[in-house]
Amino acid sequence: MSDTPRRPPLMPLDEALARLLDRAAALGRTEVVSTFDADGRVLAQDAVSALQVPPNDNSSMDGYAVRAADVPAAGTVLPVTQRIAAGHAGVPLVPGSAARIFTGAPMPAGADAVVMQEDTEALDGGAQVRITAVPTAGQWVRAAGEDVTRGAVILRCGERLSPASLGLAAGIGLAELQVAARPRVALFSTGDELVMPGAVPPEQMKPSAIYNSNRFFLRALLLRLGCEVNDLGIVPDDRAATVAALSAAAQDNDLILTSGGVSVGEEDHIKPAVEQLGTLDLWQIAMKPGKPFAYGSIASPSSRRDAPNVGTPPLPPRQAGGEPGRSTVCHFMGLPGNPVSSFVTFLLLVRPFLLKLQGATQTEVPALRLRADFDLSRPDRRREFLRARRNDRGGLDLFTNQSSGVLTSTHWADGLIDHPAGSTIVAGDLVRFIPLSELLA
Amino acid sequence: MSDTPRRPPLMPLDEALARLLDRAAALGRTEVVSTFDADGRVLAQDAVSALQVPPNDNSSMDGYAVRAADVPAAGTVLPVTQRIAAGHAGVPLVPGSAARIFTGAPMPAGADAVVMQEDTEALDGGAQVRITAVPTAGQWVRAAGEDVTRGAVILRCGERLSPASLGLAAGIGLAELQVAARPRVALFSTGDELVMPGAVPPEQMKPSAIYNSNRFFLRALLLRLGCEVNDLGIVPDDRAATVAALSAAAQDNDLILTSGGVSVGEEDHIKPAVEQLGTLDLWQIAMKPGKPFAYGSIASPSSRRDAPNVGTPPLPPRQAGGEPGRSTVCHFMGLPGNPVSSFVTFLLLVRPFLLKLQGATQTEVPALRLRADFDLSRPDRRREFLRARRNDRGGLDLFTNQSSGVLTSTHWADGLIDHPAGSTIVAGDLVRFIPLSELLA
Repeated sequence: MSDTPRRPPLMPLDEALARLLDRAAALGRTEVVSTFDADGRVLAQDAVSALQVPPNDNSSMDGYAVRAADVPAAGTVLPVTQRIAAGHAGVPLVPGSAARIFTGAPMPAGADAVVMQEDTEALDGGAQVRITAVPTAGQWVRAAGEDVTRGAVILRCGERLSPASLGLAAGIGLAELQVAARPRVALFSTGDELVMPGAVPPEQMKPSAIYNSNRFFLRALLLRLGCEVNDLGIVPDDRAATVAALSAAAQDNDLILTSGGVSVGEEDHIKPAVEQLGTLDLWQIAMKPGKPFAYGSIASPSSRRDAPNVGTPPLPPRQAGGEPGRSTVCHFMGLPGNPVSSFVTFLLLVRPFLLKLQGATQTEVPALRLRADFDLSRPDRRREFLRARRNDRGGLDLFTNQSSGVLTSTHWADGLIDHPAGSTIVAGDLVRFIPLSELLA
Repeated sequence: MSDTPRRPPLMPLDEALARLLDRAAALGRTEVVSTFDADGRVLAQDAVSALQVPPNDNSSMDGYAVRAADVPAAGTVLPVTQRIAAGHAGVPLVPGSAARIFTGAPMPAGADAVVMQEDTEALDGGAQVRITAVPTAGQWVRAAGEDVTRGAVILRCGERLSPASLGLAAGIGLAELQVAARPRVALFSTGDELVMPGAVPPEQMKPSAIYNSNRFFLRALLLRLGCEVNDLGIVPDDRAATVAALSAAAQDNDLILTSGGVSVGEEDHIKPAVEQLGTLDLWQIAMKPGKPFAYGSIASPSSRRDAPNVGTPPLPPRQAGGEPGRSTVCHFMGLPGNPVSSFVTFLLLVRPFLLKLQGATQTEVPALRLRADFDLSRPDRRREFLRARRNDRGGLDLFTNQSSGVLTSTHWADGLIDHPAGSTIVAGDLVRFIPLSELLA
């Protein structure tokens, strides 16, 4: 009698991603934060401008505001009839005169150009000015509303905020912004071989033990995505304890994330425990590194057991009531245990999932096409994500050891080459390169 | 009599940057943080491995460890004499037998290959195994030390840590890391026209007033660079108060940063106040946006007045004593007030300066060469940093309004085109593109 597992068909990465995103209904919980503290968060309502920026025509230089027609030739001398600093309104310009003006100050009515002060000479202690360059109408004048027009949507619901977004929001007077609440993610560790750094010094490590590295980069990646991380430590190696721990975690978290222990044929307690509490699918994804991947869900006590909240409409513009909404399901994701596989599957699958949970409209990272400065002669039946780095010549170098156990490759690299299954690379070929700076943002 | 300022010569950007970096002696203050919390910080000592990773030859698959020579043909049946899970050491392999083995588990002595379980059939409830594919020696075996060799420097002093670095550090057992202390930066606002968002609603804004946007993106950018930000708010518009505020700030901060108020010919209290307390140079940099830039220094009370601590050796591997070192000077930087100028000069000048204060060895961002999908027919006498965005065709689009007052351009863009002075662009040209994802990291 044979109990051999069959070799499962591989699932294309795009299909795995589509299935995950399909399950990643926006959590719908929002909160209001100071614009100062909103960097990296996902906006939960459109930001509409109630004013125009700048509010009026103003000078983009320190100099003199004039009517261009009053300066027909270089050397023209005009009386200086007023002085306008930023933040102060002038009076209408007396025809045939100039107004001393500073950067950002509103143009006086009747003036249509600014002469920068380097093109002037102040005379009589500033009572008059000689203009040494003939101005053209409109020069060094910033038009009212050239940055933002009244009623314009300057930031869209679902945008991930950056420093520039915060500046824009502040510029239209928004001191606070409504953003998606932080997803709550529980981080589980499994694996008898794992030891926490600090628990045992290197020289006393058992030969079969290794330090837990995945938990460190996974936590950092989660924090970069705006998540609140609940580190649940090592789950006791016992079925009932595992069920209890998962069940408790499912009440307080939107996602339980683990690495290791979910390959085909591995015996551990996470898999049956998740299945007892909800559902679990083991996928074999056609990607390298990162074949085994588990997705499941555990119903929250307050909700139906059988239905994940898929198909919910996107994050509403504003949630009724002050009490944040609760998701009806806690998602479960099991990453492969090999560090590089864990790192890469996080970036390509978990990252977009967590952004979508926050209602982000942009979950994909655009690839560049760059020149490979190496050969890759062995095709693989899986789509590969090769650790590579840009060199001084604008091409890409490949890390020498692409083993999924070599975490050094992810540290050395500044991007991943998205390399199609069954193909080779000859130096000079253009390849798809996904910068880590974008994936880590 | 003329009191006209002369048109100052423009300083090349590279010279301005070199001058700043020359003054940016590493602060030398370090602290020890949990490896969990070290993302984004600058490492202050080399991380050297006291062990090899992985510690021993181990299986990269779930399957059976065998001696390849014992399986001369497909269909060979071997007795299964032991079971080795990750974290557990096996015993030497009995010749002519197989060991059930799981991913990450150490190879038993005498075995030289792993047969993945998909290429096997378990017989007799697991007492025997039929091997359906002939193995080659070394297959699915990860070599001891293939990731990290004992004694290897895995992270270098001066490296800015990323999630992958944290994983590597944890992997060699480091629970804590010595990193550069956070630079302390005081943020000043100047400008009578500025109103804080929230202080006055949009419909009640005076026509000459604008909301302070610079402070919001500057603060967010400083936080991304690992700084501690001390927001000093609006400085009172009075000479003595300004001197007092700057003097106090200089004692508690490494850098005082302001935007606006330092152009040629502008009258404000910051400039004479800094000059009274230390030195101030006003530069006209040959860049667009961002011409005016001020660099100065204010001596701390405990130090000499005249000498910034330039030329100090790089951050020492470990600081003697627990008391953090004090810099002998507080730097002062005045950015232009136009939002885009402020944003761009921060990224190109202040960012590398602050990284160098932390002892970072890498302060530059490598540019890409991408295709311009637009024409730029008007050359400028200054080197330009054009706000641009990658399109679906792999080329670059230009934001329509490149005015230094239009902050929207920095929000729309995903990078800056570094465009040489005096040149034009024709669609199809390759241009230097600096991704914002790298500059904002």
